[in-house]
Amino acid sequence: MASKPSIPKGTRDFSPAEVAKRHYIIQTIKSNFEKFGFQPIETPSFENSETLMGKYGEEGDRLIFKILNSGDYLAKANTTHLEAKDSAKLTSSISEKALRYDLTVPFARYVVQHQNEIEFPFKRYQIQPVWRADRPQKGRFREFFQCDADVVGSKSLWQEVELVQLYDTVFTALGLNGVTVKINNRKILSGIAEVIGASDKLIDFTVALDKLDKIGEDGVKKEMIEKGITEEAIVKVQPLFSFSGTISEKIAQLSGLLAASEEGMKGVEELRFICDNVTQLGLSTAILDLDVTLARGLNYYTGAIFEVAAPKGVAMGSIGGGGRYDDLTGIFGLKNMSGVGISFGLDRIYLVVEELGLFPETVTASSKALFINYGDSEAFYALQAIKKLRASGIKAELYPDKAKVAKQFQHADKRNIPFAVIVGGEEMSSNTYSLKNLISGEQVSLDLEGLKNALL
Amino acid sequence: MASKPSIPKGTRDFSPAEVAKRHYIIQTIKSNFEKFGFQPIETPSFENSETLMGKYGEEGDRLIFKILNSGDYLAKANTTHLEAKDSAKLTSSISEKALRYDLTVPFARYVVQHQNEIEFPFKRYQIQPVWRADRPQKGRFREFFQCDADVVGSKSLWQEVELVQLYDTVFTALGLNGVTVKINNRKILSGIAEVIGASDKLIDFTVALDKLDKIGEDGVKKEMIEKGITEEAIVKVQPLFSFSGTISEKIAQLSGLLAASEEGMKGVEELRFICDNVTQLGLSTAILDLDVTLARGLNYYTGAIFEVAAPKGVAMGSIGGGGRYDDLTGIFGLKNMSGVGISFGLDRIYLVVEELGLFPETVTASSKALFINYGDSEAFYALQAIKKLRASGIKAELYPDKAKVAKQFQHADKRNIPFAVIVGGEEMSSNTYSLKNLISGEQVSLDLEGLKNALL
Repeated sequence: MASKPSIPKGTRDFSPAEVAKRHYIIQTIKSNFEKFGFQPIETPSFENSETLMGKYGEEGDRLIFKILNSGDYLAKANTTHLEAKDSAKLTSSISEKALRYDLTVPFARYVVQHQNEIEFPFKRYQIQPVWRADRPQKGRFREFFQCDADVVGSKSLWQEVELVQLYDTVFTALGLNGVTVKINNRKILSGIAEVIGASDKLIDFTVALDKLDKIGEDGVKKEMIEKGITEEAIVKVQPLFSFSGTISEKIAQLSGLLAASEEGMKGVEELRFICDNVTQLGLSTAILDLDVTLARGLNYYTGAIFEVAAPKGVAMGSIGGGGRYDDLTGIFGLKNMSGVGISFGLDRIYLVVEELGLFPETVTASSKALFINYGDSEAFYALQAIKKLRASGIKAELYPDKAKVAKQFQHADKRNIPFAVIVGGEEMSSNTYSLKNLISGEQVSLDLEGLKNALL
Repeated sequence: MASKPSIPKGTRDFSPAEVAKRHYIIQTIKSNFEKFGFQPIETPSFENSETLMGKYGEEGDRLIFKILNSGDYLAKANTTHLEAKDSAKLTSSISEKALRYDLTVPFARYVVQHQNEIEFPFKRYQIQPVWRADRPQKGRFREFFQCDADVVGSKSLWQEVELVQLYDTVFTALGLNGVTVKINNRKILSGIAEVIGASDKLIDFTVALDKLDKIGEDGVKKEMIEKGITEEAIVKVQPLFSFSGTISEKIAQLSGLLAASEEGMKGVEELRFICDNVTQLGLSTAILDLDVTLARGLNYYTGAIFEVAAPKGVAMGSIGGGGRYDDLTGIFGLKNMSGVGISFGLDRIYLVVEELGLFPETVTASSKALFINYGDSEAFYALQAIKKLRASGIKAELYPDKAKVAKQFQHADKRNIPFAVIVGGEEMSSNTYSLKNLISGEQVSLDLEGLKNALL
């Protein structure tokens, strides 16, 4: 290979510092998932194609990475599709497996497959990579981690209350104070559709309303009319254009607006339960807000819808989202299994924590001390000490070669190792170690116990 | 989908208990990698095919999972190969990416690609899944984790000394006392080939010698003669048939045997340095042994060769291995970059730790307490307490539904949750919590502080 090697577009190598920072975020999420009673599962990177295909719409099907069958795959290829050079139709006869596209469908598959071993309600979390053949762009990758927590097997709204608390707890632990947890309810959106007498225009309506901030009330109304929503309908939902105040006030407004819709009122009651309890239990640093334009995965969620916005002042899309889906496992034949869950957007959280300078310095700490190598007998003496330091939990290492001392110090510097330990003939004969602070330049002579205490 | 869903053969779902146990092993390995100064990197799950193909031999190429190009992949397919239905030749024109087969080639690619950012010697570790289209069988999977630590950029034998210590430290930490770290050296094997005047028979010779335990001295000699090794040659290496004693004694024997081979004597010197220093520094529980038949990846390693055997009495293949390879990155055009590394076999270590009952009970611990749900006002009271317990690091949860109490206790039992907390009207009015130990049946009434202390 003549040219310098590279990696596929949309994928990433992670350096030691990047892995350490990513791990810090993952570990914070994970430990709080567990504090909230969620248990980890892991599923295979690839699933049988039939498990994934058809679950994410046509666009999703296209974005799923397919794995070519091993061996003489053309022997079983569909001859008609092969001769017609019809890539789309040929695929299923030369590829039986595909890389997972998200963690939700594999979770649903897991629940159905293992339903007899699972104790319900099942609170599971899963932190694994997923793959999408999306066009790579800033912040969008072809391989990325999802961090999901879901409860399946209970319709209790206390789950929603706890999931808002979970967002608050994790983001507070990361120092990301002031995130906004936006909440809505699919039943509210359906109720609005009912009220305006246009259930088929729900998406158009929501998309237009979502632009209120950008194009103003007149702009939104203009777009709605262009999409075929009547003036009369718009009048009915006039309160949404000046939708503000506290959550209680917003709920009161919705209650008036949706009085005629049974489903809408059900949504109002759910929202009220969740918001009241979240408010009374209190949030540490997050802000709960009711956002009636929120409609992530509209065809998917059936109850609560969540989305988390980064703290004000940080330009970033949503850093988390989720909701309630009443029929999670129906696609695999297990009915009446309600689920509710949330997801943390690792890559975006990383960017926000980085931008705000919130990664603790210790996260990327490498070894605490580099022992300078003056030759084999000195190295042996050093390794005796290093062994004991490591047994006390101290990260320490020996420069492997008897290189020029300046080069060894430079190595410590480039690796951000804060201390060098010098062991020459003098130290060996006096059973001591010269510890040099590489930031201050200060150097002290210590016995092993003193060295250990200085580095702990 | 009518039939119950399944996963591809050779892959696995991991339940919460299995994930917890795997994580415990990974965490033990990881923390010791870091104590020894290794830093983590991560590489993409798939690489450009040209990065992987041709690096593992013909058999390896066949076992690499290829990813079908997205979109109209047949449009760019090689027409000749397509019409000839030549699967093997067609692949490169319809598949540009492949799942990584191991962590070593991606590491070599990483080092070359990022050589200007890396400070050498570079001690990296990597714990990620790899994929092989192998025939699945007991203990062999199509997706499995590798845990590798390698140093690149130094020929110092102190690395080998440290890697043996690293094996000892990790296995001791896992309670796996008494593993045998077998060591050999490629130069010893080459030296033997030289001495018997048959460098081309090296593999035949080693394979036959490896059967000494099973088929005895006569059987081995018979096989060697069948493979074309001369009687005269066999006489020369007679000491290998009664190769025993301490490591020093073995080294002395080898030294006599290989006196005529410059390369062989270099191997003897390397072995002596490594073994002497390991012995003098001391191992906690592992046993170092010189095994002259050890020849893993013969074409790959150039110096030390390592393999770890499970403690005596446990029937299991090697649970780790590694060695020195003098030209790690040459395949990507960066010459003179010596590497040495070791790998931990996660799946086998898991089986051994399980068989010996060494997983700490706390590893699979779920929530410490389940709060029984008697209705919304009791649930709210419970969640106020739960919030405070979680803030103290205690894993606690509320049963989400107001189900029959017996069912809720059963849930705690099935989830191995050791305590239930009962909060009814009485507790609420007296600001207390009834804590029930689900193993002993004992129940006490506590205030929040007492509850916290009891669960910490």
